[in-house]
Amino acid sequence: MTFETTKRRELIRITEEVQAAVDEAGIAEGMVVVSAMHITAGVWVNDDEPGLHEDVLEWLDKVAPPSWTDPANDVARDLSPDPGDYRHHAGGEDNGDAHLKNLLVHHQVIVPVTDGRLDLGPWQQVFYCEFDGGRRKRLVIKALGE
Amino acid sequence: MTFETTKRRELIRITEEVQAAVDEAGIAEGMVVVSAMHITAGVWVNDDEPGLHEDVLEWLDKVAPPSWTDPANDVARDLSPDPGDYRHHAGGEDNGDAHLKNLLVHHQVIVPVTDGRLDLGPWQQVFYCEFDGGRRKRLVIKALGE
Amino acid sequence: MTFETTKRRELIRITEEVQAAVDEAGIAEGMVVVSAMHITAGVWVNDDEPGLHEDVLEWLDKVAPPSWTDPANDVARDLSPDPGDYRHHAGGEDNGDAHLKNLLVHHQVIVPVTDGRLDLGPWQQVFYCEFDGGRRKRLVIKALGE
Repeated sequence: MTFETTKRRELIRITEEVQAAVDEAGIAEGMVVVSAMHITAGVWVNDDEPGLHEDVLEWLDKVAPPSWTDPANDVARDLSPDPGDYRHHAGGEDNGDAHLKNLLVHHQVIVPVTDGRLDLGPWQQVFYCEFDGGRRKRLVIKALGE
Repeated sequence: MTFETTKRRELIRITEEVQAAVDEAGIAEGMVVVSAMHITAGVWVNDDEPGLHEDVLEWLDKVAPPSWTDPANDVARDLSPDPGDYRHHAGGEDNGDAHLKNLLVHHQVIVPVTDGRLDLGPWQQVFYCEFDGGRRKRLVIKALGE
Repeated sequence: MTFETTKRRELIRITEEVQAAVDEAGIAEGMVVVSAMHITAGVWVNDDEPGLHEDVLEWLDKVAPPSWTDPANDVARDLSPDPGDYRHHAGGEDNGDAHLKNLLVHHQVIVPVTDGRLDLGPWQQVFYCEFDGGRRKRLVIKALGE
């Protein structure tokens, strides 16, 4: 699956695309792996609630602070008492914080499949979590079962 | 698998239930996914040592601070220099911290199965991690293999 | 897979060993689980860039602070404003921080397999992450598919 990201950071709901991949694979019982092909992104299963999504992006900036400022997106170095200063930036990169956010969120989830449907709780939705976007991104969705 | 949680937060050992699901599926080689159906819970593989479990719950409160106080469970806003204040609570919820703890712990694990047994190290046990309990909870355990 | 770790903490690249296990299993389509058999280690998929690896180990010490000092490895209690003080150490252990780092990194990843190859992005490499090493360590690598 390929798609365009427009912002530096965003949560993109992909539950429907994951279910479509299960439908196409034609499996009734098994599991589906949803795996970002990027080292500055993640996949998370949680609630589709806009306030929570803002909370999460702000909290990730506190735990894994960016070294850059983006007033338009309400992101500033001074969110953290210890603004990001990364050895990784010696090569010209500015996305050290996004690698740490990948570690926190993880690049993949596995969703069980029962009777051909994603076996999720009533509030669980699947999100692609972008931390260094504004570019074309790729995701592997692969179902295994029978 | 359905069970009752009695506390707001607790670690519940489920290794035996996961092995029982593998036995029932009758697989010798493969893997088993253990997936919480909740957005405020997680699944963790680690040591069954009570001191460590207290350490982990306290540490999770530091990294993902609650906005509420529960002296009976030794949980207080002032554990963190930056007590939780969540947009998610605008709708009447008070569990913003539990969503962040779900992100840290993750809602699922995959355990390899070899010769019909969970392929775990000598100290590895599987735990359901509840962060907003006191209610009926559900878990999917699904084995895949042959 | 068994190997010796020489340092207390290190990132060991294992992409080639994971691909070798897929080759040996002879599968073309499926997934491979890579699972540490230890409660003080993890598995991470990210960039093979030395500066980033130093950033990550230092950051993990800030979020999950050690209670010990190792000047030779640039690790000191005072990295964190709240040095580690763990109940888990009552039994004589000194690796409480390594259990928390296991929680942050997680003990396993699943990598999709397509046309017999690990389906990774151009920068994704698989690493075994050791947080309490200097000993013999074990890893399960198990491929499932057809």
